[in-house]
Amino acid sequence: MSIEIPTPTPEDKFSFGLWTVGWQGVDPFGSATRPQMDTVHALEKLAELGAYGVNFHDDDVIPFGSDDATRQQIIDRFKKGLADTGLAVTTATTNLFSHPVFKAGGFTNNDRDIRRFAIRKVMRNVDLAAELGAKVYVAWGGREGAEYGASQDTAVALDRMKEAFDLLGQYVVDQGYDLRFAIEPKPNEPRGDILLPTIGHALAFINELERPELVGVNPEIGHEEMAGMNAAAGYAQALWAGKLFHIDLNGQNGPKYDQDLRFGAGNVRGAFWVVDALLAGGYDGPVHFDFKPSRIEDEAGVWVSAAANMRNYLILREKVKAFRADPEVQEALAAAKLPELARPTLGEGEGWQGLLEWELPDPEVLAQQGAAVEHLDQLALEHLYGVR
Amino acid sequence: MSIEIPTPTPEDKFSFGLWTVGWQGVDPFGSATRPQMDTVHALEKLAELGAYGVNFHDDDVIPFGSDDATRQQIIDRFKKGLADTGLAVTTATTNLFSHPVFKAGGFTNNDRDIRRFAIRKVMRNVDLAAELGAKVYVAWGGREGAEYGASQDTAVALDRMKEAFDLLGQYVVDQGYDLRFAIEPKPNEPRGDILLPTIGHALAFINELERPELVGVNPEIGHEEMAGMNAAAGYAQALWAGKLFHIDLNGQNGPKYDQDLRFGAGNVRGAFWVVDALLAGGYDGPVHFDFKPSRIEDEAGVWVSAAANMRNYLILREKVKAFRADPEVQEALAAAKLPELARPTLGEGEGWQGLLEWELPDPEVLAQQGAAVEHLDQLALEHLYGVR
Amino acid sequence: MSIEIPTPTPEDKFSFGLWTVGWQGVDPFGSATRPQMDTVHALEKLAELGAYGVNFHDDDVIPFGSDDATRQQIIDRFKKGLADTGLAVTTATTNLFSHPVFKAGGFTNNDRDIRRFAIRKVMRNVDLAAELGAKVYVAWGGREGAEYGASQDTAVALDRMKEAFDLLGQYVVDQGYDLRFAIEPKPNEPRGDILLPTIGHALAFINELERPELVGVNPEIGHEEMAGMNAAAGYAQALWAGKLFHIDLNGQNGPKYDQDLRFGAGNVRGAFWVVDALLAGGYDGPVHFDFKPSRIEDEAGVWVSAAANMRNYLILREKVKAFRADPEVQEALAAAKLPELARPTLGEGEGWQGLLEWELPDPEVLAQQGAAVEHLDQLALEHLYGVR
Amino acid sequence: MSIEIPTPTPEDKFSFGLWTVGWQGVDPFGSATRPQMDTVHALEKLAELGAYGVNFHDDDVIPFGSDDATRQQIIDRFKKGLADTGLAVTTATTNLFSHPVFKAGGFTNNDRDIRRFAIRKVMRNVDLAAELGAKVYVAWGGREGAEYGASQDTAVALDRMKEAFDLLGQYVVDQGYDLRFAIEPKPNEPRGDILLPTIGHALAFINELERPELVGVNPEIGHEEMAGMNAAAGYAQALWAGKLFHIDLNGQNGPKYDQDLRFGAGNVRGAFWVVDALLAGGYDGPVHFDFKPSRIEDEAGVWVSAAANMRNYLILREKVKAFRADPEVQEALAAAKLPELARPTLGEGEGWQGLLEWELPDPEVLAQQGAAVEHLDQLALEHLYGVR
Repeated sequence: MSIEIPTPTPEDKFSFGLWTVGWQGVDPFGSATRPQMDTVHALEKLAELGAYGVNFHDDDVIPFGSDDATRQQIIDRFKKGLADTGLAVTTATTNLFSHPVFKAGGFTNNDRDIRRFAIRKVMRNVDLAAELGAKVYVAWGGREGAEYGASQDTAVALDRMKEAFDLLGQYVVDQGYDLRFAIEPKPNEPRGDILLPTIGHALAFINELERPELVGVNPEIGHEEMAGMNAAAGYAQALWAGKLFHIDLNGQNGPKYDQDLRFGAGNVRGAFWVVDALLAGGYDGPVHFDFKPSRIEDEAGVWVSAAANMRNYLILREKVKAFRADPEVQEALAAAKLPELARPTLGEGEGWQGLLEWELPDPEVLAQQGAAVEHLDQLALEHLYGVR
Repeated sequence: MSIEIPTPTPEDKFSFGLWTVGWQGVDPFGSATRPQMDTVHALEKLAELGAYGVNFHDDDVIPFGSDDATRQQIIDRFKKGLADTGLAVTTATTNLFSHPVFKAGGFTNNDRDIRRFAIRKVMRNVDLAAELGAKVYVAWGGREGAEYGASQDTAVALDRMKEAFDLLGQYVVDQGYDLRFAIEPKPNEPRGDILLPTIGHALAFINELERPELVGVNPEIGHEEMAGMNAAAGYAQALWAGKLFHIDLNGQNGPKYDQDLRFGAGNVRGAFWVVDALLAGGYDGPVHFDFKPSRIEDEAGVWVSAAANMRNYLILREKVKAFRADPEVQEALAAAKLPELARPTLGEGEGWQGLLEWELPDPEVLAQQGAAVEHLDQLALEHLYGVR
Repeated sequence: MSIEIPTPTPEDKFSFGLWTVGWQGVDPFGSATRPQMDTVHALEKLAELGAYGVNFHDDDVIPFGSDDATRQQIIDRFKKGLADTGLAVTTATTNLFSHPVFKAGGFTNNDRDIRRFAIRKVMRNVDLAAELGAKVYVAWGGREGAEYGASQDTAVALDRMKEAFDLLGQYVVDQGYDLRFAIEPKPNEPRGDILLPTIGHALAFINELERPELVGVNPEIGHEEMAGMNAAAGYAQALWAGKLFHIDLNGQNGPKYDQDLRFGAGNVRGAFWVVDALLAGGYDGPVHFDFKPSRIEDEAGVWVSAAANMRNYLILREKVKAFRADPEVQEALAAAKLPELARPTLGEGEGWQGLLEWELPDPEVLAQQGAAVEHLDQLALEHLYGVR
Repeated sequence: MSIEIPTPTPEDKFSFGLWTVGWQGVDPFGSATRPQMDTVHALEKLAELGAYGVNFHDDDVIPFGSDDATRQQIIDRFKKGLADTGLAVTTATTNLFSHPVFKAGGFTNNDRDIRRFAIRKVMRNVDLAAELGAKVYVAWGGREGAEYGASQDTAVALDRMKEAFDLLGQYVVDQGYDLRFAIEPKPNEPRGDILLPTIGHALAFINELERPELVGVNPEIGHEEMAGMNAAAGYAQALWAGKLFHIDLNGQNGPKYDQDLRFGAGNVRGAFWVVDALLAGGYDGPVHFDFKPSRIEDEAGVWVSAAANMRNYLILREKVKAFRADPEVQEALAAAKLPELARPTLGEGEGWQGLLEWELPDPEVLAQQGAAVEHLDQLALEHLYGVR
């Protein structure tokens, strides 16, 4: 069986953060290896490669501290770039981590003035996001966390985090914006421990908000894998809760620093199952890549890796479809009793009384059944390898 | 400053799982190193050491497959042991992982008969738990998970998990039991990936149940640390959500196999902050140790390590209290602006409009403030070391 | 480009531990899920699947404590099984971890009698290994390690470890055996920390032995990945040092308990590069799988997974060959200057004086070159995916 | 038992990297939070706090690309600072990672010109190191590694690494310098996988050099713990091999980004055992801290954390001494048979023949002994807690 890999088109809804292709390569041990990239140039190249949309932090487009006139000038030029390339703005977000004022966080900074500034900075960029047609506003709490147990009171910090999201929810409602928020969990880096470290913690937090319906998650594969989590299972739980508002695809090799490899170039099997989870769960939002083109590449390498994200997604998407359509796979799923898991454990109308009356088959006999999952998984692997 | 370490008494509410002191030392590479321990003997020794209560899996007390008469006999003897020692039963739980019938899970087993058996096994032990006065019923989904992406459909499995908890909620309500459930998250082992891998995922799941008020969490330090999570922050988020129904204290050294070291004998700083989180959040349930006495010890070593759990908790509790009471610490907290984090970000009655009108101090000036947390943390560390 | 996947034959030198297919599924939370497998039955099935050889711990074949007559009877039957199936014995090893006497280690047990017993147990099985034609004797120090800093003195333990290997080296020399030892590193499990935790530590240890030429390493993919190591780089360093005497292939998903998944069913990209490292380094020994067939499978599943190890190796071997033969890859390697790395940094006969005199090109210009590795890696990935 | 914590003095041989207290706080997500620190100011402050010496990368003192006159001027001022403060230069090292020219490594860069530049840059700073009286020259191969399997050939890279160290060894011999090299292992960050990822790999590499006697290791606690290694066991193996030429003490919380916390503020128990290993192994070199003062602190916080490194070392040193001197500990060590591990396994003059003739005690009886390590470890923990 051989599969055709299509070329990316806007229908695939691929999107990129401007901060990804524009990353200059500063890391903890070295300075920039690439010059600053012009935003409109980035739009042109991304459109050329087949992307559908872009995302940005406020400061990616408008340098921190720009005056109003400069800001407007920049926005006008950016809008023209969007119009010229046909790219959509799929999400926007706020940089609450680069400027030293946010060194100890934004919404949960111990300093109240900084918290107020942080929320206002978000509001201002929410206006721009709404104006540019974004439907999701991403919130990655870059430095909301701590290294030391006493230096942040978790419960109090969660109160402040809730206060911020409640206010922002009120704001978009009052403004009549058609915009929802998506919290991006991350376990650590640049803080020793970050608040809302995984998809689960973020989902749990959202349930405590005044307007939970306005807030979902934007999970990043790499962030989940930094905590040793199975990313696909996390995406599936978010979908199950109706909260997968946006996605950040990339690559990571286990618990270590945040690698932001291009999608596909990390845990390959994990990537296959993430795509499977997205298709199975009916995710239909933008397919967004939050990666860092290797800092040892020049600009040519940036575009090679940008394109490869989309190509790898399409490769995996076609493989997942072929896997799910393969009759031998369907047999193997049946043998492994997957359809039986979809059947309720209780009969229609049956309550706990029914369970008590039910005649239990011999556990020793039930115990002897093989799960038949090695065969099923090998089929998946062979689809991944492209050898069936 | 020197602190007095008290001797454990029932007022400290220390409890132990019978499976902990009774662990025979079977591991993936070796067979039992200690003989089976008589349950009543365990009760006697624990009472002697100052414990308040015990917990058990059904099969810890009553061997799997016992007939009704044997079961009753065993229960009677166990009750007498409780009465003789004055120990309480603080929680009970179900073994849904040791017998081969549960090799691929209980509530989310792909085999429907096994799922039905699993729920019924819980119901039966819930009756006993209620009879023995337990107020919390722990649910650790030992083998609810998978190694391979196709072998369990996460969303469907979560449906089945929800179905089970909804039914059990109905059951305790119908029976009039004063009993709540506590889900124990774990990221992996014995399955490659386990459903509800962290405190966050479990809290998020609970929100989807029919009776969320009946279900909370029972986090284990080691399980959180296996995922690189900050356990104290997790306990704090559970307390913040009103969901810390029970706790499992022990020790672990980072992401590796589940070590179940005695409390204190793993991440010592983490243990200090867990105790701080429990005291700060007003946790007042049993202080339960879910550890494994080293399999290289004989029975004498079992009791040494059991006693050390309690002693280490008391040491840390006294240290945490001394830390919080230390005037220099209070100054350091103020210098680090912790009290300011407790103050709402918005003024009384202030909305987003207020924020827009507010005059922002110069960010460059705000950025220059030092966080003053190194001094604060060093004070904590010196309390831990016992050198102030 | 499409590749043919051959069927396993003895020429591929695939071998299996008897303890792998014979694993009964005991884990820390559950008892055996499969009956004991007859050794000769295992030989027959493995031969049928195309294996070349087998390996065994002494106790896999001859139960611990068997008397001499029983032992001989078992050996005779085993030899007949080998003769009937044509399977070779490629390595043997000693079980110094299952019986409770070894609960605190063998060669480095604090108890001197146990250390003496451990060495003698090895000697006895070395005789059998030599008799059966094994050329490599594997040494996995299952329980040589500790949980607590004071409970084993590392330097003293290394002295004892050295004493044991020096003695065993003397023994094979004196007996005239054509047998070398291969130490298998592992970072942890079943001990909190194991001596010689990685390939590097084992190589370093070997250099301190009296007969370093007799001792090499037997690295296991999963063990290296439990420490977050790049397994391929480890194999390459062992080959570079002339010390890769044997290999253990399997699958693992990052730092967690030892999963022993079938080869290919873990870190897929890692597996590709391990095969590449083996081919590039000219490894020509047996290709040995040290995996555990999922304990949720029945015997049919055991053979499915056993066969899949070999198939996955062949798939990856053919892919690696196709990758290395691909002209576009060769161009990409040249663009990434791989051939230039193979050229000595100094000119022929040049010393440090030459370097001082050399005229340095402008670093700013050198800094601008892109590394061209994203394209190269994408080519590798597309070979892995089977889409070129 | 209460211990006195002394004040740091030069006799304690504490040293600091200039890059530590001078760190400006650039991280992957944010720019500098502190102004550049004057080198001589740093010397003055460190001397005031009780330090004995300093270390530096060439570029810490002399900006990359300085002309010869500027360089000499800076060196003269630095020497005066040393003379004025009485601080020693204990080691020096080379920055082969910050400038973009080294983005893909130094000694193992695929570009030959960059490799030549890297070696020459080291030679030049070796001259300065020798002139300033350093006895150890540290080599941390910051970017010697790769993210992708094909982008660096490990064996070839090790050849180049060896070539570089062989040349440098020749250089110091030819120049008559009394200087040895110390390789600093690190598993990852800023590269996906770094060559010589652990102490073990570095020790193994050194054995392949032309002048192994000139090269040892400089292990950093945090780097070992990023790989889940037991740092104390690593230091002990390096000491056992006679290769612990220098040390880097700091703090880390498990496998995640490189935290460089102040010593003591990470894995506290690990820190205790590292100090124990250093004292037990007779390490008598400088006690060097390679930490990063939290980037959320101002300069006052820098000195608080710098001082705390020394204080924590002194606290732990006194605790370790008290632990080893405690009679109850000595009894516990005897009960756990530590002295028996120090006794050779073979009798004087005994060979393998003696082992064969020896009458084995009953393994079942030997197996029953408890290891008595829980008590021993609890004693250690109580010394750490300061409660005995």
